Amino acid sequence: MPFKAVFQNPSEFRIKVREGGWKNPTPYQCPGYVQANLVVLPKEYAFDFMGFCHRNPKPCPLIEVLEPGEIEAKISAPRSDIRTDLPKYRVFQNGKTYLKDDIMDLWRDDLVTFLLGCSFTFDSVLLNAGIPVRHIGEGKNVSMYITNRRCNPFGVFRGPLIVSMRPIPSHLIPLAVELSGDFPMAHGSPVHVGNPLSLGIKDLEKPDFGDPVTIEEDEIPVFWACGVTPQEAISESSIDFAITHAPGHMFVTDLTLEMVKGKALLSPEGEYAKRR
Amino acid sequence: MPFKAVFQNPSEFRIKVREGGWKNPTPYQCPGYVQANLVVLPKEYAFDFMGFCHRNPKPCPLIEVLEPGEIEAKISAPRSDIRTDLPKYRVFQNGKTYLKDDIMDLWRDDLVTFLLGCSFTFDSVLLNAGIPVRHIGEGKNVSMYITNRRCNPFGVFRGPLIVSMRPIPSHLIPLAVELSGDFPMAHGSPVHVGNPLSLGIKDLEKPDFGDPVTIEEDEIPVFWACGVTPQEAISESSIDFAITHAPGHMFVTDLTLEMVKGKALLSPEGEYAKRR
Repeated sequence: MPFKAVFQNPSEFRIKVREGGWKNPTPYQCPGYVQANLVVLPKEYAFDFMGFCHRNPKPCPLIEVLEPGEIEAKISAPRSDIRTDLPKYRVFQNGKTYLKDDIMDLWRDDLVTFLLGCSFTFDSVLLNAGIPVRHIGEGKNVSMYITNRRCNPFGVFRGPLIVSMRPIPSHLIPLAVELSGDFPMAHGSPVHVGNPLSLGIKDLEKPDFGDPVTIEEDEIPVFWACGVTPQEAISESSIDFAITHAPGHMFVTDLTLEMVKGKALLSPEGEYAKRR
Repeated sequence: MPFKAVFQNPSEFRIKVREGGWKNPTPYQCPGYVQANLVVLPKEYAFDFMGFCHRNPKPCPLIEVLEPGEIEAKISAPRSDIRTDLPKYRVFQNGKTYLKDDIMDLWRDDLVTFLLGCSFTFDSVLLNAGIPVRHIGEGKNVSMYITNRRCNPFGVFRGPLIVSMRPIPSHLIPLAVELSGDFPMAHGSPVHVGNPLSLGIKDLEKPDFGDPVTIEEDEIPVFWACGVTPQEAISESSIDFAITHAPGHMFVTDLTLEMVKGKALLSPEGEYAKRR
């Protein structure tokens, strides 16, 4: 059963999530709006993580960075609460991970929140151009894989590149590359087309995160950098506490596609606009 | 007397500077290569500063961030030494500032180096397109002004936007905007065209940094965001120690214009290339 875009308005969607009314993955919710990966870290690791993002802009495009203790993403989602507005969280504590519906009880004043772009952002652009997006068509979470490619390390953070996969009909691959390439803040163009083994992916039917999807004849698997990458970098680091979104369960912002298209710099007024 | 591009090769230029053979501003040295602003801070302020850069990408486009204690800009200038390879440094210590030829004796293992793009980078592009660049024509440093526009604060950092000014013939302004806009990593397009007073600049002949230049009839002052902006943010902050370049005395990298044109993301291999 395909996902329906039940929600169109991001602030209404966030309130629904906050009230416990949506605990599922977020593909195709609020189409036309930017979805974001979440990383929350103690301030002592915040510079290391920001350096890691700067060295790895494909998997880690930074949309917004909050000051320590701040819970509202004022630039990308006014009146949001980072502790409750995602459908599911993943907590990293002393070498173990577990899922959680909200992080109210884990919040501390030294926690720094990072929002990173997500490829769900351009799924509606692909669909509108007539490119099938299988995980949406099949009502599933996107397939995500740990690759054999290493990120550029910085500070305590090091780890593999994680990718999301969309099967794309051969003749539509150039269009999919061009269209997604317009959104560097949502991982931009793919990192790889067509050879899972060269990324170290042995079985597409067994993703490391998310769901497997059908690959039709004449479709080629296309791989985009994925915002789950920081989660593996957190796992490989020595840090004892961090919070992220659960893969596929994103933070939906008020930013529109148009606002983050192309260069997507913040305006001098600290807001996103198409170009300045 | 116009500046001559005495040096063409950035690594040779850096060695000349290192040996004390060049203590002047750097416009039009090594044309075709990226020049960078320098900010060096104790690690405890590094996250705050990186957040400030993220919130103010026009004045503060980050080219490279070094790990604490590192002195070589491995990505943008292999075999460089950040302590010696700029013609002049500005030291901020306990509320005072002074200039220095090198910072060997001030170096500490907790210092973090940031390299930010500089508009000198696209001066040669303007010249090649037939747009006069007056500070080069007159053999001067560029004119820089403190404006009445405030940056977006982050952490301990807050301050005014600093701009550089180039007088441009009216009919060439659109071209100058387009050409510089191709280089967001070098401040990109101007922030303002034509009305100094609305930026709080009362007298163009009295720049706050650099030299005054001649404005010919039919020329309009055009203002670009400037990498001296962090220096005022350091002054306004409460921090007791920082090092920057002296205005106009830049770090010349090995990156070519082509490498930072457009989106200018780091490649997955941690290097700059035109597009990926």
